[in-house]
Amino acid sequence: MDYLKIFSPATVANVSCGFDSLGFAVDAVGDEMTFTKTAEKGVKITNITGADLTYNVDENAASAVVKKILKEAHANFGIELTIHKGFSPGSGLGSSAASAAGAAFGVNQFLEKKYTALELTKFAMFGEEVACGSAIADNVAAAIFGGFVLVRSYNPLEIIKLPVPSALRVVAIHPQIEVKTKDAREVLPKEIALKDAVTQWANVGGLISGLYTDNYDLISNSLVDIIVEPYRKKLIPFFDAVKTSAINAGALGAGISGSGPTIFALCKGDEIAENVHQAIEESYKNTGIHFEMFISKVNSEGMKIIK
Amino acid sequence: MDYLKIFSPATVANVSCGFDSLGFAVDAVGDEMTFTKTAEKGVKITNITGADLTYNVDENAASAVVKKILKEAHANFGIELTIHKGFSPGSGLGSSAASAAGAAFGVNQFLEKKYTALELTKFAMFGEEVACGSAIADNVAAAIFGGFVLVRSYNPLEIIKLPVPSALRVVAIHPQIEVKTKDAREVLPKEIALKDAVTQWANVGGLISGLYTDNYDLISNSLVDIIVEPYRKKLIPFFDAVKTSAINAGALGAGISGSGPTIFALCKGDEIAENVHQAIEESYKNTGIHFEMFISKVNSEGMKIIK
Repeated sequence: MDYLKIFSPATVANVSCGFDSLGFAVDAVGDEMTFTKTAEKGVKITNITGADLTYNVDENAASAVVKKILKEAHANFGIELTIHKGFSPGSGLGSSAASAAGAAFGVNQFLEKKYTALELTKFAMFGEEVACGSAIADNVAAAIFGGFVLVRSYNPLEIIKLPVPSALRVVAIHPQIEVKTKDAREVLPKEIALKDAVTQWANVGGLISGLYTDNYDLISNSLVDIIVEPYRKKLIPFFDAVKTSAINAGALGAGISGSGPTIFALCKGDEIAENVHQAIEESYKNTGIHFEMFISKVNSEGMKIIK
Repeated sequence: MDYLKIFSPATVANVSCGFDSLGFAVDAVGDEMTFTKTAEKGVKITNITGADLTYNVDENAASAVVKKILKEAHANFGIELTIHKGFSPGSGLGSSAASAAGAAFGVNQFLEKKYTALELTKFAMFGEEVACGSAIADNVAAAIFGGFVLVRSYNPLEIIKLPVPSALRVVAIHPQIEVKTKDAREVLPKEIALKDAVTQWANVGGLISGLYTDNYDLISNSLVDIIVEPYRKKLIPFFDAVKTSAINAGALGAGISGSGPTIFALCKGDEIAENVHQAIEESYKNTGIHFEMFISKVNSEGMKIIK
């Protein structure tokens, strides 16, 4: 094989109650990346479209991952990379994660799938470190494993793939404003009330139980974040209006995707998702802030090979 | 029906990571209670064995629950109650919960099972309030629903019954010392670090996922409590020695049952449970503290009708 084209999904991390622990992959939105095997060793980015990202191979999340894997695998070949960003960096939908995870997955195809999904996640976390300064796992794990994932532990890294009820749909709105991850981190308290933590982990338990049992009511009841959302929502204009209109239109729940500014809603079925899409659009169209939206299934397979 | 004899199980609440949220019922240890229908309205306790408990019907957890249910159901009959405590009050194994839950379950049989398990849980919580001063749900819900339960929410009360992997065994040691629930509460911090809370809820998610998938490794990895145990274990002499010997003997994990002093270990299979039992016994026998121990299956059916 000398050429490969893949789709690497956008991802929603945190998922209301699951701050720094839960994530899921999106089906309709993501990056397309191509990999061309070269006789010359090393990695080179030949084209980036859809976003203004660095071609410096040590600073770009995708090429940094490719370089690291080729080195660790003692590969006797190189890779030329093209990246088409299907969604904006800084959206809170795991842009750097899609690049980093896609890079790890893609290169692995040229190495006879030498590495497991867990190992690929570790490589992709290096890409997150390059792009964002910290090796977070939730987005890259969701992109690589597909579906819902739980980051059970970082040390050692343990990723649990959770089931995806088949009628689950995502509606997302990306207001075209910037929320810096650093600001989104700094706005959080270092300490929280024990009783609030109990409420939150009971909801994590409820959400995971709901995913295993296709219990949409339980999923809905559990999609609550009393720890992080109250602080971070202040960084996202009209968050409450979006959330309220989504839930009034039948969404199971809504919250901040990653560290924002994208707001996601989970819905049961296509019809409700359409209604929620329309309701959110209505609630945002007169705010004066530009926005993009999408509806998608939850991606249950992760990466896709296109060619 | 004029007479009923039931078994109401002991229960382990908290279950390491799931403080104030998780609980499970035990198969081998619990109370036996009899209910005799009387023409005269009201409730009366005719005999209590196995523990020194009050016969005052408004102060005894069991009779207080019976009285409340009979009143709410406008029953035209009364109940005479006997209680045989199969384990000690103050052990941390849900003694008052077994009485309260058993009472609710028993009376319901005379009312053509008018009330759901959730409603019975609410009645039993009243018994907990009578006995302990607070209407906690985890023990009574585990006793009534059986198996593992998650208290997803108190308001409204939502109990999720979780599956029980069939090889799961409990080993427990009850050191004959007193840990007052009040002290066990007061020793806890009001605030905890957000990063510790994240670790804890990832473990709650892992434990629940492990229960759904019969993944004993995952259950083992997730049976960790970094929030409550570090404080409460100081109230239980030789806790670390018991835990270490249990884990060295092959236990999946070990922790404090409820607010203690009972220490429980979960194990995969009878053989390991026997080894863990022996190892814990070895570690405690020279401490000078009297203790009782048991091995049991996790009870997956809850209450049992004996006669």
